[in-house]
Amino acid sequence: MTTAAESLSRSRALVEPALRAAVERLDPQMRLVASYHFGWVDAAGRPTTANAGKALRPGLAVTVAEAVAGSAEAAVPGAVAVELIHNFSLVHDDLIDRDTERRHRPTVWAVWDDTTAILAGDAMSALAHEVLASSGSPRALTASQALGAATRELIRGQAQDVAFEQRDDVTLDECLSMVAGKTGALLAVSAEIGAILTGADDDVCEAFRVFGAELGMAFQIVDDLLGVWGATEVTGKPVYADLAAGKKNLPVVWSLENGGDAGAQLAAWFAEHEVRGDVPLDDLEKAAGLIEEAGGRRWATEAAEQHVAAAVAAIEAVDLTPAARARLVDLARFVTDREQ
Amino acid sequence: MTTAAESLSRSRALVEPALRAAVERLDPQMRLVASYHFGWVDAAGRPTTANAGKALRPGLAVTVAEAVAGSAEAAVPGAVAVELIHNFSLVHDDLIDRDTERRHRPTVWAVWDDTTAILAGDAMSALAHEVLASSGSPRALTASQALGAATRELIRGQAQDVAFEQRDDVTLDECLSMVAGKTGALLAVSAEIGAILTGADDDVCEAFRVFGAELGMAFQIVDDLLGVWGATEVTGKPVYADLAAGKKNLPVVWSLENGGDAGAQLAAWFAEHEVRGDVPLDDLEKAAGLIEEAGGRRWATEAAEQHVAAAVAAIEAVDLTPAARARLVDLARFVTDREQ
Repeated sequence: MTTAAESLSRSRALVEPALRAAVERLDPQMRLVASYHFGWVDAAGRPTTANAGKALRPGLAVTVAEAVAGSAEAAVPGAVAVELIHNFSLVHDDLIDRDTERRHRPTVWAVWDDTTAILAGDAMSALAHEVLASSGSPRALTASQALGAATRELIRGQAQDVAFEQRDDVTLDECLSMVAGKTGALLAVSAEIGAILTGADDDVCEAFRVFGAELGMAFQIVDDLLGVWGATEVTGKPVYADLAAGKKNLPVVWSLENGGDAGAQLAAWFAEHEVRGDVPLDDLEKAAGLIEEAGGRRWATEAAEQHVAAAVAAIEAVDLTPAARARLVDLARFVTDREQ
Repeated sequence: MTTAAESLSRSRALVEPALRAAVERLDPQMRLVASYHFGWVDAAGRPTTANAGKALRPGLAVTVAEAVAGSAEAAVPGAVAVELIHNFSLVHDDLIDRDTERRHRPTVWAVWDDTTAILAGDAMSALAHEVLASSGSPRALTASQALGAATRELIRGQAQDVAFEQRDDVTLDECLSMVAGKTGALLAVSAEIGAILTGADDDVCEAFRVFGAELGMAFQIVDDLLGVWGATEVTGKPVYADLAAGKKNLPVVWSLENGGDAGAQLAAWFAEHEVRGDVPLDDLEKAAGLIEEAGGRRWATEAAEQHVAAAVAAIEAVDLTPAARARLVDLARFVTDREQ
């Protein structure tokens, strides 16, 4: 196990009991739905041992707190809150996108119905702020404010993402702004909240906010690379998943804007694909080859590394022990090195 | 204008600028949707003068604060927050229930789409907690915690309401529990938050929580009476709206349980109606007559009055000026005397 994987695993062990206790506050139906979504039970309420997910956001919160204050304890309510906000947005996004599977299991709306997905998401969102407000932390208000603002940003990004699907002239700048909202804002507040709740100074909180925001950009860019070139047996998604779905992700949009001849061919490929629907494997391979030829794969790989470097640079001035800094750098690297 | 109507109008004037300022924080698309929902602009963003609604919840918050502390100022962030939570739930409920009109205007999902309704509701919900957290109030955390818990209750009630539609054996107790969640919880926290934010003692906050909860019950019972016997030109709904929709509201459920022969005939009417769909006017009149004969109308009228009396009794021990108490009693009476 890498150090980062070990950090995440330790933080899951610390945060999960508090997350389960929070979910216990929900009424029985919403509790069942949330517990199912988190992979703790099946749809009938029987305990399961489904893949719990990376829990990157709570991992960030507690790793930052540990680095700043030597103890992760203060960050636990924040870790629970960001995980609740992340998962409320997943439940609503799965409904909006009509995705039927997440982590190899049917999504909430697919198991129950649209109403249940809307209400369960709403309940988890309210619960996040309740957890912070009832934490007894002297910095809970600052944390709640940061989380509320990040949630607005997250929703802005999600709204843009949906709107972009109707357009074929979306620019790279627009995509990057969407990603900064949809993925960046919550990773930013996850790191920031870890600093806030330990009582760190404003400039330290801000440094970690930037750290998280940069990691968020790197995370999404890597996600988009995996969406084209990820190994099915690792990602659990079909080969060339994003291309098969007709999704113009970041390497695609970069290639369309900067890829010269190969970019123009890629644009033609997408125009044709939109009309034709179901795409044979060799056509998907062709599109992946065009992105590579256009330079989109190289750009994305380099951009992800630059964002990780920017994350590490953002906390350079923060007073940390070498071991604490190493753990944070390791976690940052994990984001780009992951294969799923 | 009655004193209560005047109270509500004054509180609207106090709260609306703060509510508009909060909505300004949203990104342009969500801001447009929220502003449309609040009746400030049309779907294209042009200013309108639509009926703003009663704004009962913010009215409760500021009237309580004024009664307790002599000034409503401290309660304004709470008034904005409860109004945002109320309206987030309306936007989601309209989608869940597929209602196409609210206050004589097309609902958000009907103007835009499901995604926009989900995201706009989510944004308003997050904004509510952000407004409290950034208010600078020393009691903001307590307020945020109470609001989060009330939101969970609200969602529990809404989930029950939806689930009840699939069952024909719902008891009066179950219905009352649903109403306590769906309507009671938010009116309870609206009154409570007015006391919390003025820094009132816990027992005073609790007295006002009960005051609001009782008003909530009265409010919903009156709503259900108006759903059968409300005058179309006042309510803006069709005659016998709830009966035409096949909705078993509180007077109906009471009649089914306690109405003897007339209750049995009413049960048969609903069974037949479920199969038949579109119902002619004289059939609706017949059902309304059966509820009356069964005693459901009288029960509901008396129950509403009892809840108002319980609301007034709940704050009896609170130290208030006679004028302040009179304003609160007046607001409580307004809930049962209203015609829409």
